[in-house]
Amino acid sequence: MEPNCPTSSNDYAADISSIRQAQVRIEPFAHRTPVLTSKTLDSIAGRKLYFKCECFQKGGAFKFRGACNAIFSLDDDQATKGVVTHSSGNHAAALSLAAKLRGIPAYIVIPKDAPKCKVANVKRYGGRVIFSEPSMQSREDTANKVLQDTGAVLIPSSNDGRIISGQGTISLEFLEQASDIDTLIVPISGGGMISGVALAAKAINPAIRILAAEPMGANDAFQSKSNGRITKLSEVNTIADGLRAFLGDLTWPIVRDLVDDVIVVDDKEIIQAMKLCYEILKIAVEPSGAIGLAAVLSDGFRKNPVYSECYHIGIVLSGGNVDLGVLWNSFDK
Amino acid sequence: MEPNCPTSSNDYAADISSIRQAQVRIEPFAHRTPVLTSKTLDSIAGRKLYFKCECFQKGGAFKFRGACNAIFSLDDDQATKGVVTHSSGNHAAALSLAAKLRGIPAYIVIPKDAPKCKVANVKRYGGRVIFSEPSMQSREDTANKVLQDTGAVLIPSSNDGRIISGQGTISLEFLEQASDIDTLIVPISGGGMISGVALAAKAINPAIRILAAEPMGANDAFQSKSNGRITKLSEVNTIADGLRAFLGDLTWPIVRDLVDDVIVVDDKEIIQAMKLCYEILKIAVEPSGAIGLAAVLSDGFRKNPVYSECYHIGIVLSGGNVDLGVLWNSFDK
Repeated sequence: MEPNCPTSSNDYAADISSIRQAQVRIEPFAHRTPVLTSKTLDSIAGRKLYFKCECFQKGGAFKFRGACNAIFSLDDDQATKGVVTHSSGNHAAALSLAAKLRGIPAYIVIPKDAPKCKVANVKRYGGRVIFSEPSMQSREDTANKVLQDTGAVLIPSSNDGRIISGQGTISLEFLEQASDIDTLIVPISGGGMISGVALAAKAINPAIRILAAEPMGANDAFQSKSNGRITKLSEVNTIADGLRAFLGDLTWPIVRDLVDDVIVVDDKEIIQAMKLCYEILKIAVEPSGAIGLAAVLSDGFRKNPVYSECYHIGIVLSGGNVDLGVLWNSFDK
Repeated sequence: MEPNCPTSSNDYAADISSIRQAQVRIEPFAHRTPVLTSKTLDSIAGRKLYFKCECFQKGGAFKFRGACNAIFSLDDDQATKGVVTHSSGNHAAALSLAAKLRGIPAYIVIPKDAPKCKVANVKRYGGRVIFSEPSMQSREDTANKVLQDTGAVLIPSSNDGRIISGQGTISLEFLEQASDIDTLIVPISGGGMISGVALAAKAINPAIRILAAEPMGANDAFQSKSNGRITKLSEVNTIADGLRAFLGDLTWPIVRDLVDDVIVVDDKEIIQAMKLCYEILKIAVEPSGAIGLAAVLSDGFRKNPVYSECYHIGIVLSGGNVDLGVLWNSFDK
């Protein structure tokens, strides 16, 4: 199969139908987030930009969509035993919140060196925290032990059809709110969000371009696309703490086939984009959330003639969980 | 006439009809700003809260509504000569932007000690800056000289029917977006916004409560309501730089009759509300903009049995023009 050539949706872990079902399932719980526009940013970018503000989603990030879909997909027998994940970020908080709404336990395995504020976030939403050692091996082992002890269901943060379907609801809303969008720019990490967004958007408008935005210091998706196979990195280094994961076996085929290109930006560009989000859009956007704006302002995008016909660009601002002091201190004042 | 007893709208500088006309007039230019909600803030406040996010309005504040209405109300002969105001804040920037959209000059008299960022804002939107001495007398004299020299039209920031009508469009949108609102909380300074909001809201729903939020250090509206006449202060002292003006002869009768009460809060409460806006709502709100949230969380509101039946509260977050460093430095870390 050629890259960029959509196959039958049967090949993938989700499709427009599962995404529409997710929309119905999460609608009572999730926010329909607003879309903001700014003439000032349009003039800086030289295009018409639409910003889908997932920083205003429950829990402060898009992750609630997938977590909510996953949890409310469980049948009662499965649900009673609860859910497990090993993540210390937005997925953990979102899963805790969604589990609380269903009234079931969420067991969250967190490395013991995780920032206190993230642990506090999980606890605030009622998640039951189990500490592991910092290594991925220990995190997985600990999660497996919790699975065995409790009979709970593992809900991964990205590589899961229920998660992909939930995140895909972003496209359903976004293309209703701004129907002239010809290009979507979406942060990429584990690939759950961009997979759902791409599946839904290309089902609605097969001509739409889907571009991933990825940090230079964690550019596994860029390398995977170049190599034609999942490529993991031995280390990652970026301010965008939500974009350090790698593609999985369910997200990779979708990214391979439906993502038209990966725009790689450096951390300085990400910080500058966060600053513009604050100063011009008046919103708090975390580094991972601002990367789409960084991509559209990057030379790699602006100077590439392939993109000269991207006139109406939808950018997913994926989350807003950034401490004000961190934001302020990251700026080159 | 008893306070709180609406009179015929003929007595006032604006009415529901002029506000509906303003809505049609500004619709091509102004943002219909989104309304955000937060279960977390609801649970802190013990009420259902709706936030009308005027920080996302053009120019970063509600002021664009009134300025745009005023400028597009002018006939062509008047308009050609331009407009004048003496304000260094959001009204000056909004008037500059609206004038630019109509293609006419905006002469902005700014005291020479005004913050550079505010001068820059006015210039960015194409306003022609004329510096005066810092005193109000010099500002008025300079504005009068510009009026004589240019034949331009004076557009005050609050005490003007066109301005009041433009700001009133907030209510038309807000009550459509959240139709169960029983109480509106609005910042008060010169009274232009709350006058328009009150006129429109009470025309739509005569039972709605209109509460003003005012800083302790600039509580002229509270004193005016208590004294039954316009009461000016010899000095003002508050972090809320947008709330230091006094009521005028056109706004006072509306505030006297249609504003049910004034909730006074101190600067610490304002700062705490700004912080909640950033951390929970994920938005940048300036001190003047956050005062409505401060009011709803204040003891003066929560412990007052009169307000025990305010179940669904609409709060106007009036602007977002706050430097990130200022925001960060104002926090008690």
